[in-house]
Amino acid sequence: MARATLHVCTTCLRGLSAPEGAPRPGAALLAALAARDLPPGVVLKPVECLSACATGCAVALCAPGKWSYVYGHLDPAQDAPAILAGAGLYAASSDGIVPWRARPEIFRKQSVARIPPLESPDEQP
Amino acid sequence: MARATLHVCTTCLRGLSAPEGAPRPGAALLAALAARDLPPGVVLKPVECLSACATGCAVALCAPGKWSYVYGHLDPAQDAPAILAGAGLYAASSDGIVPWRARPEIFRKQSVARIPPLESPDEQP
Repeated sequence: MARATLHVCTTCLRGLSAPEGAPRPGAALLAALAARDLPPGVVLKPVECLSACATGCAVALCAPGKWSYVYGHLDPAQDAPAILAGAGLYAASSDGIVPWRARPEIFRKQSVARIPPLESPDEQP
Repeated sequence: MARATLHVCTTCLRGLSAPEGAPRPGAALLAALAARDLPPGVVLKPVECLSACATGCAVALCAPGKWSYVYGHLDPAQDAPAILAGAGLYAASSDGIVPWRARPEIFRKQSVARIPPLESPDEQP
C-alpha cells in the first residue's frame, strides 16, 4: 500500500501576528505531531505554505489514488492526537474516504476542501 | 503533457439556501465554464462536493506531478473567463505554480488551499 502523506503547514499563524522569538503556530503543530508515534502508513512532511492562511493551522492528507483532504482551524496544543488518528484511518482506507462517523470530530467539522484523486493513467490522453 | 483537470463543485450553494426550481450556484458555474472554449490541456470535470461549503462556489485544479489548488468565493455570473484563463496558465506550467503577477486576481485573492504534488514513484516505499 502506498503511504499517505500528512503535510503540515509550518508557516500558519492561526490568525495571530507573527510571534517574536516564538515558533509559529504551524511549526508548533508540526512539533506536536512529530513528538508522537505515527500511525502505520503515514509519513509526516512539513510544507512552507498550504495557501490556507485564513483557516490555519492547516494540514493536508494525500495518497496516490485517493481523495486529498485539507483541514483547518487546528490547535497545536490539543489536536495532534486526533489528527494522527484521522490520518491513520485515511491511510488504511482504499480511496481516502473514511466513514463519516469514524472520523475525528475535527475532521468532520473543520474541512477546508477535498480534491478528487488524479485521473488513472487509462484516462490520460 | 498530462492534462490539467478543472474540478467544479456542482453542489455549492454560495451561502444561499438551496434554491427551489433553480440550479445551484455550483451547477450554474459549471454551465458558465462549459459554455466557453477550454484552454489547451484543460479538462472540465463536475464533482459533487469539494467539502469547501463555507467558501463556495469552489473549483480545484490538479495535474499529475503538480501542486493542486482550490479556489473559492467564485461568482458564476462573472468569473468563468478568469477561471479559464488561470486554468490555462496552470496547464502550461511545469509544476502548477504560476508566477504571482500572471495569476488572475481571483486566483491571487481567493485561494482556499493548495496541496503539494504526490511523491514521485522513487519516494514511494
